[in-house]
Amino acid sequence: MGMKLYGTNTTNVQRSILPILEAEVDIDDVLELEFVDLLKEEQKSPAYLAKQPFGLLPCLEDGDFILYESRAIARYFAEMYQDQGVPLLGKSLKERATINQWTEVESQTFNPVVAGMAVESYISGASKRPLNEAIINMGLAKLKPVFDVYETQLSKHKYIAGDEYSLADLLHAPNINYLMTTLKTEAYGNYPCVLAWAQNITSRPAVQKVVELNAKWLKQQTP
Amino acid sequence: MGMKLYGTNTTNVQRSILPILEAEVDIDDVLELEFVDLLKEEQKSPAYLAKQPFGLLPCLEDGDFILYESRAIARYFAEMYQDQGVPLLGKSLKERATINQWTEVESQTFNPVVAGMAVESYISGASKRPLNEAIINMGLAKLKPVFDVYETQLSKHKYIAGDEYSLADLLHAPNINYLMTTLKTEAYGNYPCVLAWAQNITSRPAVQKVVELNAKWLKQQTP
Repeated sequence: MGMKLYGTNTTNVQRSILPILEAEVDIDDVLELEFVDLLKEEQKSPAYLAKQPFGLLPCLEDGDFILYESRAIARYFAEMYQDQGVPLLGKSLKERATINQWTEVESQTFNPVVAGMAVESYISGASKRPLNEAIINMGLAKLKPVFDVYETQLSKHKYIAGDEYSLADLLHAPNINYLMTTLKTEAYGNYPCVLAWAQNITSRPAVQKVVELNAKWLKQQTP
Repeated sequence: MGMKLYGTNTTNVQRSILPILEAEVDIDDVLELEFVDLLKEEQKSPAYLAKQPFGLLPCLEDGDFILYESRAIARYFAEMYQDQGVPLLGKSLKERATINQWTEVESQTFNPVVAGMAVESYISGASKRPLNEAIINMGLAKLKPVFDVYETQLSKHKYIAGDEYSLADLLHAPNINYLMTTLKTEAYGNYPCVLAWAQNITSRPAVQKVVELNAKWLKQQTP
């Protein structure tokens, strides 16, 4: 024990802890999860803002050390466990650079498109109101030029940054899984290589385990 | 020689090459600059799209190796020259994590607010039309809650990720410099610690050199 993650059932939170699960570490041995209720705006409480001044999830507490931003937390765990399980960070300068290129594509290009849809699905589910179809359709339209590029890349390589699984695939996995479970045909219909990649990376035990944890968080949320 | 950077006078392009200048390497010895004219949409030409399929600048060609995304290129150079000039990447796991946290804040929170203003200034300048004040004012309003957090951090530390200059400051520098030269009072007026930091990081010789290069690119653009 020792580390505590403030989080809830969002893809941002899933992304931050996936490297622990890829390292084949029993997450319950190293990390305690503290549920933060977004519907009650607990992320804007003074106690939480003292840790994460932007009022965003997740936030990691490792003793006195506070770390936020899901991708920075994911890199922290990837480096902490780099000798356990699957290597995520690349062996050479050029391998690391290509992985970094695709982690940047994820955060700058893929995520802004999908996050809007994921947030809308989260809020409509949590507050039990119908989905705003306009937001979903706009997201799907913006996703097409992104997946056009991904399809070409994934027709040449098994994984997004090359022939080995890496942090670049891992950081995509939670939102790719969201699209698999909610919008499979609409998102992947015209992209056979993207679909094969999506099925491949979301069938990993680490991603399946994060989905289980997600269900646990959902239960905590529903009184 | 050997490397070629496709770019123009934008803060994204400046960001990508700053680590070379911090390494006190003569940039003309290692990198050739190939001007891409955004006003002629050269970034959407088939030849350029074959290198950078999203049609964005910058893009690095290092022999057969192609690398895009400004922050990934910056990390590539930071790691390539890590033993020369100022260290940018952090010495311990926790130092690197905190630097990564603030590079993520730069890319996820700071940049989306400032990029809109920088792009508007770039287009209005390049196409010689008046500035759209509404875009600038909206950007300044969104910048306030970000600088509220930065002011607190910079009242405790000389640099954004702690007491040493790092990649987190470097990735901010081009847009911080843009705000210094165009909107100093409006952006920094109520933030003395942010202003001191902005003056500190933009007065570095590497940033001054990037501004000189910028002027050279501008000249190439104007027939």
